This record gives sequence, structure tokens and C-alpha cells, in this order.
Amino acid sequence: MNRNAEFTGWKDKILFTPGPLTTSRTVKQAMLRDLGSRDHTFIEVIKEIRKKLLTVSGADSSYASILMQGSGTFSIEAVISSTVPPEGKLLIIINGAYGKRMAEIAAAHRIATIIAEGPENSTPDLEAVEQALKNNPEVSMLAVIHCETTTGIVNPVKEIGALCKKYGKRYFVDSMSILGAVDIDLAACNIDYIVSSSNKCIEGVPGFAFIIARREAILETRGRARTLSLDILDQLERLEGDGQFRFTPPTHTLLAFHRALLELESEGGVAARAKRYRRNRDVCREGMRAMGFKEYLEEEDQGYIITSYRYPESTNFDFQKFYDLLNERSYVIYPGKIGDTPCFRLGHIGRINEHDVRDLLSAIASVKKEMDF
Amino acid sequence: MNRNAEFTGWKDKILFTPGPLTTSRTVKQAMLRDLGSRDHTFIEVIKEIRKKLLTVSGADSSYASILMQGSGTFSIEAVISSTVPPEGKLLIIINGAYGKRMAEIAAAHRIATIIAEGPENSTPDLEAVEQALKNNPEVSMLAVIHCETTTGIVNPVKEIGALCKKYGKRYFVDSMSILGAVDIDLAACNIDYIVSSSNKCIEGVPGFAFIIARREAILETRGRARTLSLDILDQLERLEGDGQFRFTPPTHTLLAFHRALLELESEGGVAARAKRYRRNRDVCREGMRAMGFKEYLEEEDQGYIITSYRYPESTNFDFQKFYDLLNERSYVIYPGKIGDTPCFRLGHIGRINEHDVRDLLSAIASVKKEMDF
Repeated sequence: MNRNAEFTGWKDKILFTPGPLTTSRTVKQAMLRDLGSRDHTFIEVIKEIRKKLLTVSGADSSYASILMQGSGTFSIEAVISSTVPPEGKLLIIINGAYGKRMAEIAAAHRIATIIAEGPENSTPDLEAVEQALKNNPEVSMLAVIHCETTTGIVNPVKEIGALCKKYGKRYFVDSMSILGAVDIDLAACNIDYIVSSSNKCIEGVPGFAFIIARREAILETRGRARTLSLDILDQLERLEGDGQFRFTPPTHTLLAFHRALLELESEGGVAARAKRYRRNRDVCREGMRAMGFKEYLEEEDQGYIITSYRYPESTNFDFQKFYDLLNERSYVIYPGKIGDTPCFRLGHIGRINEHDVRDLLSAIASVKKEMDF
Repeated sequence: MNRNAEFTGWKDKILFTPGPLTTSRTVKQAMLRDLGSRDHTFIEVIKEIRKKLLTVSGADSSYASILMQGSGTFSIEAVISSTVPPEGKLLIIINGAYGKRMAEIAAAHRIATIIAEGPENSTPDLEAVEQALKNNPEVSMLAVIHCETTTGIVNPVKEIGALCKKYGKRYFVDSMSILGAVDIDLAACNIDYIVSSSNKCIEGVPGFAFIIARREAILETRGRARTLSLDILDQLERLEGDGQFRFTPPTHTLLAFHRALLELESEGGVAARAKRYRRNRDVCREGMRAMGFKEYLEEEDQGYIITSYRYPESTNFDFQKFYDLLNERSYVIYPGKIGDTPCFRLGHIGRINEHDVRDLLSAIASVKKEMDF
């Protein structure tokens, strides 16, 4: 390792990525403690986190929150592997890489699936989804990605939920990249399970994820779990029993997350956070357009979590060089080829504001000049 | 939550538990950074961790290290669910709660098992183990706990490994609570897979675990993984490909772990760490005996990671009260009924030394007087 770069105290780079994200100094400082996992203080921290998560996620008292160790994908796998009955089928709506990942998870567990796949540059065709539900009465649950990080598109979770209600299906939303920065009402959307992680819009550090489950739905899943570690009903029952995790929790990460939830409240809650992210997106897009960059999605399909930009047409553009030159200037962006279309991505979430975005834009302008594209 | 206790800056309690443990200030401070998961610096951190882990674990170049998100149990489940062939059988040696957990994991995946269970107060009967291997040629892998945290007993992993070699079985050791503080030679012990976690003897913070796998063994497991998230071969191939995790890594926890490995080296490596823990155990045991406490295990079976003490016979002894009074004095101990024998446990690992142990002993003496047992 280059110990100069690592240990001589340069400031950290700003992350314009889908995560891990830039977090506040105070969120990180909350980790400067060692708490026992059975300690009363720590059990109170867990309890407060679980309670606050219901508010942040737009859940009423018919829902329960479950914290699960591992990355977000672990929690997606936890829901799929714990809830689909042995003879059940999962209908997966796919318009990007994260929908495909759900299908990989189902395949690993030999869970039968119906795939409703559409192009990555548009929201799902609701008529096709309805047709799939109508044609496959054996489907037990429908799964969809809320905001596809591949492109940044936001899928119509409420409209899809209405179809699930009409056809009597359980409904699972992977809201990894947007929950905490979106106004949502789980009951009104007919959502049974929704998942996000510690280090997305709530701005904690990575290390666990969470599932908000409708009690009525999860209670009917007893005996279905295909793993021990990712058994969400077992995890819930322990959290609601003695208040502890079944297996060692990431205590420091949970302390950071607790702090992050308090900071989300101080900022003004979900609405204020969504407003900041939208502002980041707007300032970023305006500046990028002024430099000639083009978004991958049509404007009406764009979300405010992450934006995909097409590579400039100039032969002088080389993504790796572009990335490295921005990196040298302390800005981290994200790759992201979509199908055959070469793109890169700029994230709008984390502890960044419009001033950080303007700094990024200046850096991009300088790199553009240097590379002459 | 009691915000006074939480936020007004009392010093942290010292943890005499099996984990999460007391860690060094500098290990925690290493988490005060946000690094992107594709960042060059971060990828170098992962690489260094993986390399240093081989040294700490007594592995030669025929082994590879795999880091896995989640608690230690996730990595135990990762090994079992990724390596046993569909028609294979797992022979599990049980002399405590963690052996039983392995059986629960196998059951969740419908993996056939043979259980060789013995009493919790003694090491496994090697003749019975050999008999089980002889009688069950269909066994593909044998699994055993290195140090059973239930009692603190250290199982004879080398002798068991010799039996695995004799009968041509794969060999999996759950070394969660002792790896990093024990002199071991994986090849000499014929071990194919060994697991420990970030917050045991290496003294990092909790959030991930690691698997040291014999390359020859893991390469024959392709296609066997029963999950996506816990697929250890897939995880290894990505770590050895572009150097990244497949799914979001706990970046802060990994930075802390990297620092913890450097501090393990500074202390003098595995031998020096084992020496400190033994000293903690000796000082603790001498003081406890002087107060009339009795260990659960015979002295020759005792390890130096954690010690189980029987409840005093006095009717004035009440464990919860004992625990709470020690907690008020800033010392956290651990419960631990063994079978029908009421016991509690004192851990010897983490960033604690004999002075901390003496402080604990003074506190226990004071509580003993107060409770009059």
C-alpha cells in the first residue's frame, strides 16, 4: 500500500457513488465506543433504531422492522429465501442489474420464478405485469426494484402494488437506494416487505441492512426459511423477545446508524433529505448539460438518487483516465455500462450538498479541458 | 434511552465477554474515514488484510483468505452451505452450543449429518470420532469447534485432523474465538477450511468474518453453493479478480481490522497475544479461586479465551443482581448456563490486560461483600 496516501492525513475524497457514501463526521465519531451486545444501552439503541425506521419508511403499526447483518444483498436474499413457500413462485420485474440479481438469488435457492423483463431505459409495462399476474395464478409474491441504481430510474411501486392487491399476491420492494429519501406509505402501496441498507439515504456506514415487514405477511412464513443466518422471522422474534440479535451484531455500525437517524430528523426528515438530493441532482444535471454531457434516461424517467451519463462522443474520452483524473482531484465517480451503451454514473446521495456538486463540476470542467474531449 | 448514560461521556465499560470486545482507541479511530469500495486505497487495504490473515492463521501458500460480510455465524453457514456436495454428509463433533449451531445450519440447508456428541466438560472422544468416520464412508466433511465458547474448552484439532487425513475427509474448523491467539499450522493439522471473525482475537470491531480455505479443496466445490450471498468460491474469485467484494463491503470495519492486524504485529504477533490472554486468564483464575469461585472445567481442559465459573452455593447469590452490580461498576461479564449447571463466564480476550483483570477482581470482591454470598 502507498502509506503516504494512506496515513499522512490527506482529506477524504468525496463520494459521488451509489455507496458506500460520504457520511457526516459525527456519524463516524459515534463508532468510537465499544458496547457489549447484551448491554442495556445497546439494546435501547436497537429498539430506537427499529422504531425510527418505521417512521422513515412510511410504515404504520401493522409493520415491524428487522435489522440484518451483511450488505443489502444479504437482506434481499433474506426476504426471498425466508418467505416464498416451497411450492411458491416469485414474479420478478426486471429493468436493470438489481432485478437480475433477485433472479440469481431465487435460482440459488431453486425457487421457481417468472421474469417480466423490460428495457432498462423505461419503467415496467404495467399491462405486461398485469398479464403475467393473470397468466400465473401460482405466483406467491411479486418483487420489484424501487430505484434501479443501474440507471437511476424510479419504478412505479404504488401502481404495481395495486396490481398485487387485485391479484392477491405478496409484494416485495427492494428500495435499497431510495428509502429514507422518498415519501412513501407502505400500507397504501400494499407493500409486504421493503428493504434498504445502513449506508444509503439514511447516511450511516455500511455493515447491515433492514427489512420492514408487514406482520400479517411474515407471520405466515414460519418454517419456510432456507438458511439460518438469513431467517427473517427468527431474527424478528429475537429482536422482539429479549431485544438482541441472534448472532453478533455490528455494534459500532449500529451506533453510527442511530446517530444518522437523529441527523436525518434534524435535517427535517425524509422530505428535507429528498429536497437536498433533488437539488444535488438539479445542480449536477444543469452543469453537466452545459458541458455537453447527455443523460442516459429521458428527463421524465430520471430519479434523484443517481444519474447515468452517456460517454461523450469524442475519441479523446477515455473513462478510466477521466475517473483517475477526477480521483486525483478528490472526487470519486462511478462506472456503469448499461447494456451496450457506455455510461458512467454520478450519485446525488450521502453527506453532500450543492456546493460539493459545484466543486465536482469544476473538477469535471478542468479534466475535460485536460483530456480535450 | 437514558440519554444521560448514553451521551454525557462516561467512559466505556470494559468487556469481559466473548465479543463484541473492548478494542483499542486507534482501531476505532481508523473508522473515521469514508472510502469508496472501488477506491484504489481500499482495494489495497483488502489485499493487505487477506495476506496478513494467512500469516496470523498459520496458512501457507496453498491457502487463500476470503472475507465475508455478516457475523461469524454467517461465515460458518457460508462454508457448510457452499462446500458439502448435494449427496454429501457432514459429520459434526459437538461438545457445546456452537457445535449444535452447526447442526442447525446443516438442517436449514437439508444437508444430511452424522452427529458425534459428547459431554460439554470434556474434549471429544477420539475413538468415537474414528468409529463414526469408519462407520460412515459417505461423510464428505468433518466439522468441529476449535474453542467452544460455551465452556472455554479447546478441542484437539490436530488429532482430529489426522483422523480426517486417514479417512480422506475434508476438514472444517470453526476457530471463531481463538484464531489469532493460537499457534497453529493449517497444513500440519490437515485443515481445509477455518473460520474466525473480525472481533475476536484479532481485536477488530464486529461486522465481517473470514475463511481461510485450502485452494485444492475450495476449487472442487464449484456449483455446490446453496445461496448467493454466502457463496465462498464466488466471493474468493471476485476478491482475487478485481480485488473487490461482490456486494457492498463494510468499509469502516475493514479499515479498523487492517489497523488491528498492524497492532497485532506490533504486540509481537500471535505468540505475544496468546501470552497476554493466558496471563489474563491466570490472574483472573487465581483471584476468583481466592474468593471461593470454582471453574466449571477441570484445570487441564481449560482454555485461555474464556472461563466458565459455577454459581457460588450461597442462597444470597443472584446472577442478575451480580451482573448488574458489576455493570454499574463498568465491568461487563457474560451469562452462560451449561446444560443444567448454572454458570457465568469471564472472557480473557480483547484489549484488556492483567491490570484490567485486577480491577475486575476488585469489583467482584466489592459486589460479593455487598451481596453477602
